[in-house]
Amino acid sequence: MLKNLPSLDRLIRTLQNVPYLASKNVYRVSMYFLGINDKELERFCSAVLDAKKKLKKCLQCFNWCEDGELCSICLSAKRDQGLICVVESWHELLAIEKAGGYTGVYHVLGGVLCPLEGIGPKDLTIDALVQRVSKEGFVELILATNLTPEGEATASYIASKLQGTNFKISKLASGVPIGSNLESMDRVTIYKALSCRRPF
Amino acid sequence: MLKNLPSLDRLIRTLQNVPYLASKNVYRVSMYFLGINDKELERFCSAVLDAKKKLKKCLQCFNWCEDGELCSICLSAKRDQGLICVVESWHELLAIEKAGGYTGVYHVLGGVLCPLEGIGPKDLTIDALVQRVSKEGFVELILATNLTPEGEATASYIASKLQGTNFKISKLASGVPIGSNLESMDRVTIYKALSCRRPF
Repeated sequence: MLKNLPSLDRLIRTLQNVPYLASKNVYRVSMYFLGINDKELERFCSAVLDAKKKLKKCLQCFNWCEDGELCSICLSAKRDQGLICVVESWHELLAIEKAGGYTGVYHVLGGVLCPLEGIGPKDLTIDALVQRVSKEGFVELILATNLTPEGEATASYIASKLQGTNFKISKLASGVPIGSNLESMDRVTIYKALSCRRPF
Repeated sequence: MLKNLPSLDRLIRTLQNVPYLASKNVYRVSMYFLGINDKELERFCSAVLDAKKKLKKCLQCFNWCEDGELCSICLSAKRDQGLICVVESWHELLAIEKAGGYTGVYHVLGGVLCPLEGIGPKDLTIDALVQRVSKEGFVELILATNLTPEGEATASYIASKLQGTNFKISKLASGVPIGSNLESMDRVTIYKALSCRRPF
């Protein structure tokens, strides 16, 4: 059927490369693109190309930035430059910013250590982090990698690299999430919440 | 956070308009676009713009076509031009083509009647269908709209418009799908399968 429609075939094959788009939705999204008017479609393409052209990584924390070499958080006078939160990617940075209340700065690793996929320390921004904290004398470093085996291993690796430094290294509290009931929690989380219990 | 990154903000807002893309995946897909290289990104945009420019609706059946005024199915000498299958959209046409075995031609309605959304007979290709079958003397017309209330109502409306014509009007068999068990079927399907039972 599609062999007589090479440009539709090409559009569908291109959309199949986009992650998080279910294969059955690829056809529906291709119909969306064919259905909107030319102006909207050009606006879509220009938004994608423009973002790609303008967005750069902050030279200090590897967050996205658009103007200059440092991101708005690194440049902000309101942010505590002595408190640094290490996250895997921009998604986690955004999640923490959305939660609100954090006043320090960030360091975006750009992934996690994963030997099976060939991702080693050199593929992440760990060296830049070590150099950054050795230079500037931070008060505290929070390891906020995800609580997955890879995230925890990456946090351990970073902690080992920073051994002997004189600032505090901390990690996020783990336990039962707010709004959840104990019945539906996995036993490792309950064990953790019990062993890390705090005074009422 | 995003107010300092206007081009990323614009990319995310553009992707939020794309249907079938879950809101949490919009951020991930935007990172995908920022992650691929310039050449791949240009290839993506050119695939979208090219498809939009080249694909037209077939003047006879409203299927997609790329060269000329009629689609490959309408032009095919192997297709039985006396047998027409009426479908809601290109997705259903593709599903029937993938199933194989159908040798007739199609008529794509471009949707279903839905008074609540203001979609009436004039918004679909029903007039063109009536004109098409009155001109050419078909042998059989198969109403293959989806088995939803709107699909069934649209089929009934078309059947009423074609009353008094001298070709056969049929509809898809409904019943228990192949590979399924009765226990998990809804009772309307079971009732239908029983009342439309066939000799073994």
